[in-house]
Amino acid sequence: MRRALAVSAAAHGRTSPNPAVGCVILDAGGRVVGVGATAPPGGPHAERVALAEAGERAHGGTAVVTLEPCDHHGRTAPCVDALIGAGIAVVHAALADPNPVAAGGRERLRAAGVATRLGVLADEVARGPLRGWLHRQRTGRPHVTWKVAGTLDGRVAAADGTSRWITGPEARAEVHDLRRRMDAIIAGTGTVLADDPALTARRPDGSLHEHQPLRVVVGHRDVPPGSRLTGGDAVLHLRTRDPGEVMDVLTGRDLVDVLLEGGPTLAGAFVAAGLVDRVLLHLAPALLGAGPHALGAAGVGTIADIVRLDVDEVRRVGADVVIDARPAAGQDVPGVGGSVW
Amino acid sequence: MRRALAVSAAAHGRTSPNPAVGCVILDAGGRVVGVGATAPPGGPHAERVALAEAGERAHGGTAVVTLEPCDHHGRTAPCVDALIGAGIAVVHAALADPNPVAAGGRERLRAAGVATRLGVLADEVARGPLRGWLHRQRTGRPHVTWKVAGTLDGRVAAADGTSRWITGPEARAEVHDLRRRMDAIIAGTGTVLADDPALTARRPDGSLHEHQPLRVVVGHRDVPPGSRLTGGDAVLHLRTRDPGEVMDVLTGRDLVDVLLEGGPTLAGAFVAAGLVDRVLLHLAPALLGAGPHALGAAGVGTIADIVRLDVDEVRRVGADVVIDARPAAGQDVPGVGGSVW
Repeated sequence: MRRALAVSAAAHGRTSPNPAVGCVILDAGGRVVGVGATAPPGGPHAERVALAEAGERAHGGTAVVTLEPCDHHGRTAPCVDALIGAGIAVVHAALADPNPVAAGGRERLRAAGVATRLGVLADEVARGPLRGWLHRQRTGRPHVTWKVAGTLDGRVAAADGTSRWITGPEARAEVHDLRRRMDAIIAGTGTVLADDPALTARRPDGSLHEHQPLRVVVGHRDVPPGSRLTGGDAVLHLRTRDPGEVMDVLTGRDLVDVLLEGGPTLAGAFVAAGLVDRVLLHLAPALLGAGPHALGAAGVGTIADIVRLDVDEVRRVGADVVIDARPAAGQDVPGVGGSVW
Repeated sequence: MRRALAVSAAAHGRTSPNPAVGCVILDAGGRVVGVGATAPPGGPHAERVALAEAGERAHGGTAVVTLEPCDHHGRTAPCVDALIGAGIAVVHAALADPNPVAAGGRERLRAAGVATRLGVLADEVARGPLRGWLHRQRTGRPHVTWKVAGTLDGRVAAADGTSRWITGPEARAEVHDLRRRMDAIIAGTGTVLADDPALTARRPDGSLHEHQPLRVVVGHRDVPPGSRLTGGDAVLHLRTRDPGEVMDVLTGRDLVDVLLEGGPTLAGAFVAAGLVDRVLLHLAPALLGAGPHALGAAGVGTIADIVRLDVDEVRRVGADVVIDARPAAGQDVPGVGGSVW
């Protein structure tokens, strides 16, 4: 399952609206004979990619897959048919499919005499490459990660507006790797005017990653001609300040994972609207004592209304500290625990 | 040495201006026969406490001590005389004594035929109970820890001023344990007026720890009659806003370890003056989006002047995250590396 998880993570960002699933086929002797991940929309699912590599060696073997194989005639035929047809004897899946249209794979497999097991590394898969997709299945809207880089005292720029660079190269490289896995990046017009960001996913040498997220600018002001955003792929400019309207548009475009990159005003509006599903804070060990805050007005006036989060992880990245958190109460890990085959 | 470090940590806060040293005596067979820490000023040093417990069993044994034994006739006779007199054969010390008056212990021990070894757990001792004392030896002034509790977005209270509680009970208990080891706690009059803090070191049940730090209020405004600060021990009110003046007074009082607890304006002034030696940030996984900042103006106007820190440790305490940092460049660990016997 670790290998299946790794290949799904590598495919993450290129499969939306389909889930980035990973699959490993073992032959009857336990040797790996096929590895596959979900192809971009219209292409085969992970199981078919892995089965194609395995060929006849799959007979009597085991399929290890991060999501319950589908029993759904969509753009591709049901994966359960392919598994049964290849003579797979055992299927291990991390998570049950929460989508009622595609679910039922387990019953079909069982009826065909295939042994099934659910829950292997379920937590890691649900918090990893399938998190956004599970969220969209549950809520009907994309999963929003608010990423912010600031100082220990909560500033994202100095008093004169300069902000390059607060965090170190290792943390910034992580942001580009995160962008690569996203369907869209959202920034406010204030940030566009202040920082002139490109909002692209780049390698450390500055070259562009193969997959680029849709760039979304939110706000009433114009994007100045000649700004970095006007180069490259198209930019979606939504002339609103209402996060709900933004989400409606992104939902209609079949997006799964979106990254909110600022600025403070827009982030505050998203937090106030309950539309931030993950907070990824890159903290530089530094102090400014003045300058714009990480977060603007979020509808909190008194301590009783503080927005509490649960910390999933605290990591050190280069000289910086990364805090990965989500709204408190664990309401954002559907499919874990509750949904057992 | 771990045990010597532990007893020195337990004595930390009650020995100033003397260092909180720990000493363990092993007999010739390697059994622990005596354990001691520095007594409050005027009382015996750690070596004498441990030797008194060991008695004749110290003969031919080993002394493990966190600081080079003194060769100094002060309020007590030199520890090296006591060690030699007890027939100790080997002395292991973590750190050399940087104080030229008290140093020279190693030469005296060697001349008497005692084997010596320096550097055991030197880093842990220097970053632990002896940190403030080493700092004072090096700089001539007390060591200042700025402790602040805030949200991920750098707020220390909500927009209406309410702030109880941002961090959880575990983190707050740590603060009281920290206060217990301090010689003084500093707060600005703004914090006194806004929060009415007691600035005492309390146990989780609310009772007072045996050792209470001197409470220091800085600023021109009066402490209102009836405020919690006016109860209990005396409060030192310094009617200035100049951190240098504050430090001069505290230096004159033979203090070693002081804790700066706020508020943002005073902390900013200390940071700007280069008078913060340690930053202890208690981060609650929560967002406010408005309210007072963790740090006020610190003399930084542009990103090139950002105050960089080095992170010593990142820990999770209850639901919170604690970041322990110091001014960048490692200038604050005297005695480590450079000063080898």
